[in-house]
Amino acid sequence: MTNPVLVEVFRGETVESRHRGSVVVTDGDGKIVYSLGDIERPTFPRSAIKAIQALPLVESGAADAYGFGNEELAMACASHSGEPQHVSRAADMLARAGLDVSALECGAHWPTQQPVLIALAKSGQEPTALHNNCSGKHAGFLCTCRHLGVETRGYSALGSPEQDMVREAMESVTGAPHTLDYCGTDGCSIPTYAIPLKNLAHGFARMATGTDLAPARAKAARRLMDAAMAAPFYVAGTHRACTELMEMAPGRLFVKTGAEGVFVGAVPELGLGIAVKCDDGATRAAEAMIATVLARIFRNEAELESKLDRFADREMRNWNGITYGVISPTEELTEAGIN
Amino acid sequence: MTNPVLVEVFRGETVESRHRGSVVVTDGDGKIVYSLGDIERPTFPRSAIKAIQALPLVESGAADAYGFGNEELAMACASHSGEPQHVSRAADMLARAGLDVSALECGAHWPTQQPVLIALAKSGQEPTALHNNCSGKHAGFLCTCRHLGVETRGYSALGSPEQDMVREAMESVTGAPHTLDYCGTDGCSIPTYAIPLKNLAHGFARMATGTDLAPARAKAARRLMDAAMAAPFYVAGTHRACTELMEMAPGRLFVKTGAEGVFVGAVPELGLGIAVKCDDGATRAAEAMIATVLARIFRNEAELESKLDRFADREMRNWNGITYGVISPTEELTEAGIN
Repeated sequence: MTNPVLVEVFRGETVESRHRGSVVVTDGDGKIVYSLGDIERPTFPRSAIKAIQALPLVESGAADAYGFGNEELAMACASHSGEPQHVSRAADMLARAGLDVSALECGAHWPTQQPVLIALAKSGQEPTALHNNCSGKHAGFLCTCRHLGVETRGYSALGSPEQDMVREAMESVTGAPHTLDYCGTDGCSIPTYAIPLKNLAHGFARMATGTDLAPARAKAARRLMDAAMAAPFYVAGTHRACTELMEMAPGRLFVKTGAEGVFVGAVPELGLGIAVKCDDGATRAAEAMIATVLARIFRNEAELESKLDRFADREMRNWNGITYGVISPTEELTEAGIN
Repeated sequence: MTNPVLVEVFRGETVESRHRGSVVVTDGDGKIVYSLGDIERPTFPRSAIKAIQALPLVESGAADAYGFGNEELAMACASHSGEPQHVSRAADMLARAGLDVSALECGAHWPTQQPVLIALAKSGQEPTALHNNCSGKHAGFLCTCRHLGVETRGYSALGSPEQDMVREAMESVTGAPHTLDYCGTDGCSIPTYAIPLKNLAHGFARMATGTDLAPARAKAARRLMDAAMAAPFYVAGTHRACTELMEMAPGRLFVKTGAEGVFVGAVPELGLGIAVKCDDGATRAAEAMIATVLARIFRNEAELESKLDRFADREMRNWNGITYGVISPTEELTEAGIN
C-alpha cells in the first residue's frame, strides 16, 4: 500500500518536497475513529512510547519511594534537549536512588537543539550521559531496578529484568505481540519493537482511559500522562514541539515524538489515542501531521484549533530571515473529519 | 506519478523508513541513458547547480584577473562546511577583489557539521557570512561584479546584473526555461528556479562534454569541473559526501549535493550527467542514490564499484557505537543497467 502525501514543502509557489505517511486515531476499545494510509505496517515507536516504558517505575512503587513528582515523571517520559534543568533533574533522580551518571547505559551525545549545543560547547563542557535525550527514562529504569533490588548493571539489555518488565507493559497496553522478529536496538541501546501503527494509537488511548488495564496500571498510566501534561518542559524543552503543543491546552492533550517521523498523542477528555508515522522518517512532517490531527479533534474550539493549525502550517525562513516557503499539511489531512 | 522507493532504512531486520525518488542519466545531447521515476517534475537544484552558477566568474575573466586556481574555483562551486580553510579561502577571494566579509549577502549560519560547529563554539567565535556554506559562491559573484565594474551591492537580488548572468548560464546549459513561475528564494537569498530533473542531468552532461555550448562556455565549464575534482575538500569538507565521492576516483567523477535531497554528478570520460532527487528531501537518501548510480556506471571497475557500493549501503551506529541497522538502496536502484 502506498501511503498518501500528507505534508508538502513549498518553495515560492512550487512544491519542493513531499512527505507520505499514515495516521490513526482510536478510542480505548481500539475502535478506529479515523485513519489515513497503512495502519497495519509494523512501526518502531522509538521514543514515542516512553510513557508506556515508564509504567514499571510507577507500578513498582519506585516513583513513590524516591519521592518523584510531575517533573521527575515527565523526565521519565522525555526526549529532552539536554538543557541545564534536564541535566540536573536526571542527576537528582539518580542521586535519590544512590546512583550517579556512571550507572547510565544510554551513551552520551551532544544536545540536538543547536542553541543548547552551542551553549554547552561555549561553556567548555563535554556532554555526558546525563545530556542524552533519554537520560530521564534511563534514570527511571535504574530507580526501578534499585527499588526492586534488581542488579542495575545491564538494565538496558534485551532479556534483563527491567527490559522484560518494559516489554510486558508495552504488550499489555498496545495489545500487540512484541516479538524478536520485529525487535531492533534503539538509539539509547534498549530493545525497540515494531508494532502496527493502530496498536500504538490504541496504546495511548488506553493510557488515557485505562480501558481493559488492571486498576494499578490504569492509575499509573494516568499519573504519567498527567505528569507530562503538567510539566511539558521536562518532556522536551525550549521551542520543542512536544512542549509547545502540550502548553497550548494544559492538561488536555498529551503528545510525544519519536525518531524517524513518529508522533503519538492522547486526548483524555475524549478518550482518544493518536499515532502518526511519516514514511521517510522526517520530524518536520510528523510534527505537522500530529498538530493537524489535533486541530481537527479540537475543531469546535476555534482558538485552540487555530493555534494548532498555525503550528502545523509554518513559514520557513532562510539565513537572512527571508520567508522562502511553507511546510503545509495537504487537504487529505486538513479535511479529516475526526470529531 | 508515484516515484519508486529507492532507499530503505532498516532497524534490525525491519524497514523503519522509506525514501522515494527519481533518477536520470543523460548524455551531452540530452538522450536519456537511464531513468527511474518522474524526471519531468520541476525540481529546485538548490546548491547542486553551483558549478553552472560559477560560469560567469570564469567567462568574464574575473577568475583569471584575480589569479584563481583550483581551490578558489572549487570554493565557487562549493557548499562547504565552514572549516577554517574554507573561511580563510573565502576571505582571501574577497580580498583579491578589494572586498571583505561585509560585502557578502548570504547571511551567517553556524556550520552544519557538528564537529566544526563545536570547534567554532569552543573557540569563543561566532559564525560570520564567511562560514556560510555558500560564501565561496557569493565571493565568486562579488569578484565577477567587481571585475566587470558592476555595482556589488544587491548582487544577490532577482534582476541584478549578476543574477541575470547566472540565470542566462543556467538556461543555456540546462536547456530549460527559467521563469518567474518556478522561481523561489534560496537559503543564501539568491533566486533559484525549479526545472525538470532531466534538464539538470543534461546540464551536467553538457558541463562535462561542452556539447552545443559556445567554445568559451565549454572551456569555462570544464575548467570549473576540473577544479572541483582537483580540490574536492574545498567543495564540501571533512567526511562530506561530495569530497569523499570525488576522492574515490580523482579527476574522473564530479558530484555536488543540493539541499532537499538533490544530487548531481558527471562522468566526463563517458560524457554522462546524472541528477537524483529524493521526494522527501532527505540528504541520506540522495547520497545513497547518487553513489549507487555511480557504482553501476563504473561496474566494470570492481574496486571503484565496491567503494561506491559501500558508500551507498552503510551501517548506522547509535550513541554507544552499536550497529543498529543499515541504510540501503533498493533492488530497483542497485540493479540498474546503466553502463
